Amino acid sequence: MFKEAIYHRPKDNFAYAYDEKTLHIRLRTKKDDVEAVHLLYADPYEWKDGVWQLNRAPMVKSGFDDLFDYWFIEVIPPYRRLRYGFELTSGNEKIVYTEKGFYHEAPTDDTAYYFCFPFLNKIDVFHAPEWVKDTVWYQIFPERFANGNPAIDPEGTLPWASEDPTPTSFFGGDLEGIIQHLDYLVDLGVNGIYLTPIFHAPSNHKYDTTNYFEIDPHFGDKQTFKKLVDLCHEKGIRVMLDAVFNHCGYYFAPFQDVLKNGEASKYKDWFHIHEFPLQTTPRPNYDAFAFVAQMPKLNTENPEVKKYLLDVAAYWIQEFDIDGWRLDVANEIDHQFWREFRQVVKSMKPDVYILGEIWHDAMPWLRGDQFDAVMNYPFTNGAIRFFAKNEIGAKQFANIITNVLHSYPENVNEVAFHLLGSHDTPRILTVCDNDVRKVKLLFLFQLSFTGSPCIYYGDEIGMTGGQDPGCRKCMVWEEEKQNRDILEHVKKLIALRKAHPAFRRGKITFMDASDESNHLIYTKTYLDETILVMINNSSKEIDITVPLSLKGKWLVNLWTN
Amino acid sequence: MFKEAIYHRPKDNFAYAYDEKTLHIRLRTKKDDVEAVHLLYADPYEWKDGVWQLNRAPMVKSGFDDLFDYWFIEVIPPYRRLRYGFELTSGNEKIVYTEKGFYHEAPTDDTAYYFCFPFLNKIDVFHAPEWVKDTVWYQIFPERFANGNPAIDPEGTLPWASEDPTPTSFFGGDLEGIIQHLDYLVDLGVNGIYLTPIFHAPSNHKYDTTNYFEIDPHFGDKQTFKKLVDLCHEKGIRVMLDAVFNHCGYYFAPFQDVLKNGEASKYKDWFHIHEFPLQTTPRPNYDAFAFVAQMPKLNTENPEVKKYLLDVAAYWIQEFDIDGWRLDVANEIDHQFWREFRQVVKSMKPDVYILGEIWHDAMPWLRGDQFDAVMNYPFTNGAIRFFAKNEIGAKQFANIITNVLHSYPENVNEVAFHLLGSHDTPRILTVCDNDVRKVKLLFLFQLSFTGSPCIYYGDEIGMTGGQDPGCRKCMVWEEEKQNRDILEHVKKLIALRKAHPAFRRGKITFMDASDESNHLIYTKTYLDETILVMINNSSKEIDITVPLSLKGKWLVNLWTN
Repeated sequence: MFKEAIYHRPKDNFAYAYDEKTLHIRLRTKKDDVEAVHLLYADPYEWKDGVWQLNRAPMVKSGFDDLFDYWFIEVIPPYRRLRYGFELTSGNEKIVYTEKGFYHEAPTDDTAYYFCFPFLNKIDVFHAPEWVKDTVWYQIFPERFANGNPAIDPEGTLPWASEDPTPTSFFGGDLEGIIQHLDYLVDLGVNGIYLTPIFHAPSNHKYDTTNYFEIDPHFGDKQTFKKLVDLCHEKGIRVMLDAVFNHCGYYFAPFQDVLKNGEASKYKDWFHIHEFPLQTTPRPNYDAFAFVAQMPKLNTENPEVKKYLLDVAAYWIQEFDIDGWRLDVANEIDHQFWREFRQVVKSMKPDVYILGEIWHDAMPWLRGDQFDAVMNYPFTNGAIRFFAKNEIGAKQFANIITNVLHSYPENVNEVAFHLLGSHDTPRILTVCDNDVRKVKLLFLFQLSFTGSPCIYYGDEIGMTGGQDPGCRKCMVWEEEKQNRDILEHVKKLIALRKAHPAFRRGKITFMDASDESNHLIYTKTYLDETILVMINNSSKEIDITVPLSLKGKWLVNLWTN
Repeated sequence: MFKEAIYHRPKDNFAYAYDEKTLHIRLRTKKDDVEAVHLLYADPYEWKDGVWQLNRAPMVKSGFDDLFDYWFIEVIPPYRRLRYGFELTSGNEKIVYTEKGFYHEAPTDDTAYYFCFPFLNKIDVFHAPEWVKDTVWYQIFPERFANGNPAIDPEGTLPWASEDPTPTSFFGGDLEGIIQHLDYLVDLGVNGIYLTPIFHAPSNHKYDTTNYFEIDPHFGDKQTFKKLVDLCHEKGIRVMLDAVFNHCGYYFAPFQDVLKNGEASKYKDWFHIHEFPLQTTPRPNYDAFAFVAQMPKLNTENPEVKKYLLDVAAYWIQEFDIDGWRLDVANEIDHQFWREFRQVVKSMKPDVYILGEIWHDAMPWLRGDQFDAVMNYPFTNGAIRFFAKNEIGAKQFANIITNVLHSYPENVNEVAFHLLGSHDTPRILTVCDNDVRKVKLLFLFQLSFTGSPCIYYGDEIGMTGGQDPGCRKCMVWEEEKQNRDILEHVKKLIALRKAHPAFRRGKITFMDASDESNHLIYTKTYLDETILVMINNSSKEIDITVPLSLKGKWLVNLWTN
């Protein structure tokens, strides 16, 4: 066997507490290299006559990707402590893999050889809100969703959808507009809305906050926002806001104070300033988001800044009862800040959802002490490459998704945020080169997948547009201009997701994937229900044999009913 | 190249902040498989005409073990952000390794392919006390070090060293005894003492605490302890105490209250009780250390318990100015507790040393938010197997040490706690089958190694004894009964360590290791000094060529002066 490919390290995605009683243990081996793996395990204090009392149990192959097989087992250690190793077999060959390396036979004279999960402490278990698993999100870019109150339009507001947006155009979208279209959302079937920033800020996207305690006057006021949240809650819709804590806007009062008073400003340590006086060109001489002088980075290590931002986080929960915080540029802020953020918001509302914007592998933020989820762009990326761009075949797609799922614990995957696009990416119909069939397959995959899916406003009616600002066009409300075909498809999928727990909560298993015919078959299983999804990602009709024994089983075609 | 053996994942020991400006990046590849590795890297926002502006720099091979080569590079990202990948070459073959997998050429159309170190936030940098790097510890088991005040001896105290210890014997060792022998410690050259528990407890080892706020009356009183700490500080010796927070003793008042009042006790949630009434046999029906009914596990998730124990941690710093806490059974307590522990003790005394007792891989506790160090038993284990037991050859030993060093960040290694034995292991002279030469080599390796070495009381004078209670004999004070040969050897090594920064702080490089002659050669380099250590771990004389170009260099034989 290929020892160099074998990998395990306790904690993170390889050995973790799934719940207060259960450990999950995974092992990675070279693909098709190992025939069977058994877990060797026991409580470290179970000894008899100088021999440690090892148990042995088979692991199952939970998936594979391009290079590796993954093995899995669930263990309930009676005293919440575990030492363990792995027995790998292939033909006549047998090796035992431990923390101290490889052995021919499992040593039983000492537990020190073995991997260690020292104690399953409840408080350290990754624990996200249960409702997230049953939520379909809808992302709204408020300036472009609906203009409900023209009286508060900014100066120079353009007539709705009168032209394509630029980085600086305004169309008058506001909170009242969202309120007026809540029935549309209910009809669509979503039960969570995520609003990009709504606090006082000069830009149309409002990621350059001027005042974190005020609603932007062009979006409405606190009373309107309160009404929005209350109406949403009445209709069973959760509300998530966008916390832009990595940086503020240029017109944020403390930054203006530093601009004015320089080194004498009492706010000078609220930022990371390289030298005085401040300069914005050619690059800012202070830390900023990217090199954008309009977005000075906040010094979140400064206790005053920390208190200010944690007060903001608490305020909108306490006063308006919001259900989630999406955290902008979350990985550029220190871990310590996020640990305290979690303590504060969870102590106020234990089932609030904490969602970080992280485009990369995000394990260090998902260990239970910081976020509940991240925006799972590796999922997005894989789905776009397979369904939209046909850059990869069905096998590689299944491998990518398997890899993503194995890079996090299962309880993390169950509440992961799965999006096909956002205000930061081109619209999916555009990415699909206007091929509606591809968009429909993308929605099918997303809405039959585990976790918490999110629909970017307008994608469900076939809106188009390239990278920002193209993807931020005004929502199309005239039914005759909406793609009703996509809309009905999405509604049907959401309805299925709602009706069948296996659709939303089921564990995915890839049954078959072919690069030739480019079809993909997977099951979703939850409790006693299994849903079989067969996707033909080609332009040809194909005949395939269902890779499941259906004998004696009750079958329903969910799609045609 | 063997792709399956290539491993990297940001954070932990593979990509970490070494200091406020510097990132360390490591890569693991199959041994002897890759000829060169270059880091491809840039700030994520450095773009020109749609092309990401990648830099390319060579990595060095920092070591190898049985299966793998390790590659290393230091980077100072100007804006504290980094995206990076690896270019690996072997002969004509070239591959680029990124977070998204392998490529033939480095993609420059998107940074999303690459590994991400999002931002170097100062507060997240692993930061341990500087003084630890220059400290040689001496571990004292107070009941067996010296009896300075017979008036406080427990009933039934045996005459000093009159017989071998049993699990329950008392010999009257106390704090006054330590005070009386401080000059011995100064003469030996140590500048830190670590005392196993000294709080009120019935046993001789005192790991079964009755009262965390009182000195055990058989050891002395608070005045005596204050005197001990003050005298130590005058002599430049730091003092570390043992915090037994995983469990208390049977006679701890809150546990007694639960025994007495059962479910009605206000302390019932201070423990993990499976059912009432409490039973101690055959196994306790409450969580305990191992299955020891005398040591009930504390519920450190309970805010009351947490407050109580954090008050204990603060009290001994505030009132007695101790310099470190060694944390007993540290990995069975929740991470959340230790995070708060760190906040409390570091806010009182920023340079206090936090040392966890963890026998296994301890990366999850060494991420900067919990401990400064753990008792590095994997180091101990390797050294014992090579020097004491001759179970492994010089090559495998070098591989084990290289593996240990690469399993943690460098700043973690620099303050790691390196012991050859403790109150929990047989004495090294006994493990060496009474071969003094082997003990001397063990001390040479330990005291020329990086980190913070610790000598277990009496090992320096050749005391013997098997597993506990054998390793807890009374300290031998009659010079004629001490092994002066070992003692002079240890003193000389400590003096060299003190005189030469490279001896203590230098980075170790294995130059040569032979299984045939069983010799080992390594250098320690710090600033402009390099120390060369040549060890012959065999009973034969051997001739070896110094594997260093010495031309034009100033040479001193440190051993013979």
